[in-house]
Amino acid sequence: MKPEQPQLADFVGELEEWLRERGVRVALDPQAARWKGEPEVALEESAAKLDLVIVLGGDGTLLAAARGIGERPVPILGVNLGSLGFLAETSSDDLYRALEDVFAGHYRVESRMRLDVTALRGERTLGRFLALNDAVIGKTALSRMVDLETLADGSPVTTYHADGLIAATPTGSSAYSLSAGGPLLVPELEAIVLTPICPHTLTQRPLVLPETCVVEIRVHAGRGVDVQLTVDGQVGHALGEGDRVRVRRAEHPVRLLVPPGRNRFEVMRAKLRWGER
Amino acid sequence: MKPEQPQLADFVGELEEWLRERGVRVALDPQAARWKGEPEVALEESAAKLDLVIVLGGDGTLLAAARGIGERPVPILGVNLGSLGFLAETSSDDLYRALEDVFAGHYRVESRMRLDVTALRGERTLGRFLALNDAVIGKTALSRMVDLETLADGSPVTTYHADGLIAATPTGSSAYSLSAGGPLLVPELEAIVLTPICPHTLTQRPLVLPETCVVEIRVHAGRGVDVQLTVDGQVGHALGEGDRVRVRRAEHPVRLLVPPGRNRFEVMRAKLRWGER
Amino acid sequence: MKPEQPQLADFVGELEEWLRERGVRVALDPQAARWKGEPEVALEESAAKLDLVIVLGGDGTLLAAARGIGERPVPILGVNLGSLGFLAETSSDDLYRALEDVFAGHYRVESRMRLDVTALRGERTLGRFLALNDAVIGKTALSRMVDLETLADGSPVTTYHADGLIAATPTGSSAYSLSAGGPLLVPELEAIVLTPICPHTLTQRPLVLPETCVVEIRVHAGRGVDVQLTVDGQVGHALGEGDRVRVRRAEHPVRLLVPPGRNRFEVMRAKLRWGER
Amino acid sequence: MKPEQPQLADFVGELEEWLRERGVRVALDPQAARWKGEPEVALEESAAKLDLVIVLGGDGTLLAAARGIGERPVPILGVNLGSLGFLAETSSDDLYRALEDVFAGHYRVESRMRLDVTALRGERTLGRFLALNDAVIGKTALSRMVDLETLADGSPVTTYHADGLIAATPTGSSAYSLSAGGPLLVPELEAIVLTPICPHTLTQRPLVLPETCVVEIRVHAGRGVDVQLTVDGQVGHALGEGDRVRVRRAEHPVRLLVPPGRNRFEVMRAKLRWGER
Repeated sequence: MKPEQPQLADFVGELEEWLRERGVRVALDPQAARWKGEPEVALEESAAKLDLVIVLGGDGTLLAAARGIGERPVPILGVNLGSLGFLAETSSDDLYRALEDVFAGHYRVESRMRLDVTALRGERTLGRFLALNDAVIGKTALSRMVDLETLADGSPVTTYHADGLIAATPTGSSAYSLSAGGPLLVPELEAIVLTPICPHTLTQRPLVLPETCVVEIRVHAGRGVDVQLTVDGQVGHALGEGDRVRVRRAEHPVRLLVPPGRNRFEVMRAKLRWGER
Repeated sequence: MKPEQPQLADFVGELEEWLRERGVRVALDPQAARWKGEPEVALEESAAKLDLVIVLGGDGTLLAAARGIGERPVPILGVNLGSLGFLAETSSDDLYRALEDVFAGHYRVESRMRLDVTALRGERTLGRFLALNDAVIGKTALSRMVDLETLADGSPVTTYHADGLIAATPTGSSAYSLSAGGPLLVPELEAIVLTPICPHTLTQRPLVLPETCVVEIRVHAGRGVDVQLTVDGQVGHALGEGDRVRVRRAEHPVRLLVPPGRNRFEVMRAKLRWGER
Repeated sequence: MKPEQPQLADFVGELEEWLRERGVRVALDPQAARWKGEPEVALEESAAKLDLVIVLGGDGTLLAAARGIGERPVPILGVNLGSLGFLAETSSDDLYRALEDVFAGHYRVESRMRLDVTALRGERTLGRFLALNDAVIGKTALSRMVDLETLADGSPVTTYHADGLIAATPTGSSAYSLSAGGPLLVPELEAIVLTPICPHTLTQRPLVLPETCVVEIRVHAGRGVDVQLTVDGQVGHALGEGDRVRVRRAEHPVRLLVPPGRNRFEVMRAKLRWGER
Repeated sequence: MKPEQPQLADFVGELEEWLRERGVRVALDPQAARWKGEPEVALEESAAKLDLVIVLGGDGTLLAAARGIGERPVPILGVNLGSLGFLAETSSDDLYRALEDVFAGHYRVESRMRLDVTALRGERTLGRFLALNDAVIGKTALSRMVDLETLADGSPVTTYHADGLIAATPTGSSAYSLSAGGPLLVPELEAIVLTPICPHTLTQRPLVLPETCVVEIRVHAGRGVDVQLTVDGQVGHALGEGDRVRVRRAEHPVRLLVPPGRNRFEVMRAKLRWGER
């Protein structure tokens, strides 16, 4: 739980009470715990003991929670506190009804493929990350374009001369990749989308690869070009000439709780305003 | 074999002789047979007895041959007579070396998913087609836009208010769908791409669905709007108000022969000129 | 006035009375006249005597009225009966207040550039049209792509191998050209936009030319390819191999009445939902 | 002149001699002068006394030279040392013939509109720049998107929630703006193109404004979001919350020398490979 604004205090307090009344043991996330004066326990530590994670916030909060949970198979219920999210589908107005449905076993678990992202310098691992949305290798401002030599299962794909390259999951296809011109992928299709950001070569279009592919992206950056790996828009690592980023399907998906009768296209229609002209 | 120009006479004659010398029995396609004064046998009939179909021509010729072969599992060697094709990858300059490799078993068979496309009026089937590239439901010129109500596995996706809608295979993703803004899909990824043509709603972007999806597109055309189903740009059927087109993965793929060491991205790079600025 | 539905009867009757009370002589358009049992006079004939044309309907109705008015400099007040239009900006709810403002001289006249479009076969003129939005040269369905050799002031631009080509005014840049990937142009910028429809060559991007340019588009259509010129989505002419379409700025603009304080970007923001995420 | 590689020594030496033989006084740019052991004089200082600037290099070198020349009306001959440039149209192979034509008065001067770009913090001017291609306001990597509230002549256009916003000249429309999805503008059309970079709102499309427009872009950047103004990809200034960038047409254009019979679309065709499929 991530109460980010003071007005959430009552909301979280009520929820906690509602849960305890039903015999549910509640662990607050560190931010909520600090704000309530309770001992802080990192999600990374508490996740192993949890049966359900309730995320109050938007898609960004859920991405952070999914990262905290790591590879543990605990399901997540995403509750949006404001506008509908691609990930946080349940409205806070429906929270208690939704929780009753969850406890009654009416919700189903939807597996969302993740990317296992490793940044490498020669033989050395600079960092390893799980991405629910995307891994972005991009230049920083003022820098000129960067050359990103890309291989799939060892076969050269192309060298993108661009602002950057997005490797997205189907879940992430409705996020940054969409803004960069990528296609929408239905989440249950397991695949990897490579979407170049402002490519110099106009024919370098978004490319959809099988989820079994191992993608390797090698950075060719001239002097003074700063390149950055960013995962889910939240964490990352600075990269230099010759560094590589290896992207493959992660072994463990994220498990999202979705209501039983929910049409998978409803969220797209609502978020992208397809129903309106 | 489809010799379309007189200058191909010698080329086909030589090839026929080369094949007979190696003990291969040759059946000419009707067009070639007519031109040589031999009895014409439709590919539809002869295909059952063939072990290999050699297509001389471009991608269009190969699409027609694949349709003629239908569901029979005979492999196709695509030989381009002019410029490199996405499908007809073998150059005519390399034909004899390629054939020797094929006979020696060095080529491998690459399965290419097809779409099984049915046009329906109420309970009645208007036509049924196999698409290696795509099925396009589109308005004819002067007509205004058409409304295409689209469902995936029975769930409403959206109603496209557009010039038309392309349902493409991964193979077809580099053809018309690409011109309409669709992504590139690697052929071995089995999936269905829905790409709207000039949609009125700018947020209706190309959508990639799992290959298990059954897509149904229902035509809502006002008075005076003529709508047409076109399969692989070659055959089709006129559609009217309320008609539906059902698109699903076909049971039998096309079997293309590809050289052993061939990198699947080479053709993209060459055709889309990725190597150049 | 174009009352297209029975429920408009009262609305038009009231408006007519309101106008006559203020000493305004009213001429109904033929459709409205027929419906009221009055003699029908084509807009083409009556326009010379009019000081103001009130268009009730959507953008399509206004395009038709502008064509009827032709080159006569009578100003148009576009009143939308349903949703906001790019052209019909005044809501029917605000009609009487708007008319009072118009009569008080508070509205200003906004000149909207038109295109003078001529279809030519050799030396012969097939047809000549005024376009407020656009002229589209496009193939009909089932036909393959068409080659459109394009010149600007006699200089070869390129040959588009595409579904078609749109020549749009700034006013038309928010209509069909936008769906085909064209940019938005502010109406007071005088320019001609050439937007190819689904071009085979991905680098053939929308092109903005000075309004002084004379554009000539020559049709190269193979056997069995039907090509059509369509103007403002409403009128047109069939074209064949070698036919040309000449597009230049029309001498006389359309004169739209717009409210005094109206921000020119408001309509874009509202129609394209820029304010929302 | 910008000899950037040792192998250019002879080339520049020969050119200098060729020019002196024809009675032309030659001033080397500082880089060339340093390398020849002559006193260095900044282009900013020498430009006032020059009748012609010969730029040896690519488009980047010409952009830098144009900035050095500033508002002085000295014409520039762009000579590309490698591949054809959008700006450096004359090939080094044709240099001497081109120079003879220039001296004979056969070349004509083509005026290229520039942007006058001012970065403001409250009343204070942070920096003022001339842009021949574009001014880009963009976030740096890892940062989240930035909100760019944009006004044209004081009227609110929209707030772009994007990676950044490009304000480009017609000359710059074939550079970065094109990669970000912008249209091509013919250089003699005077206009300003606003192209958002990866906008979150998909309907925020490139916008073409009259060259008389004064555009103001106000930065709304949350905590930890670094924003940068970059002009012609070469110089710039860091921006913070509330800073504004004012963009208007510069008073003095750049004057490029172009060969007499040159078709303005040839460079586009060659650079964008329109002639090929």
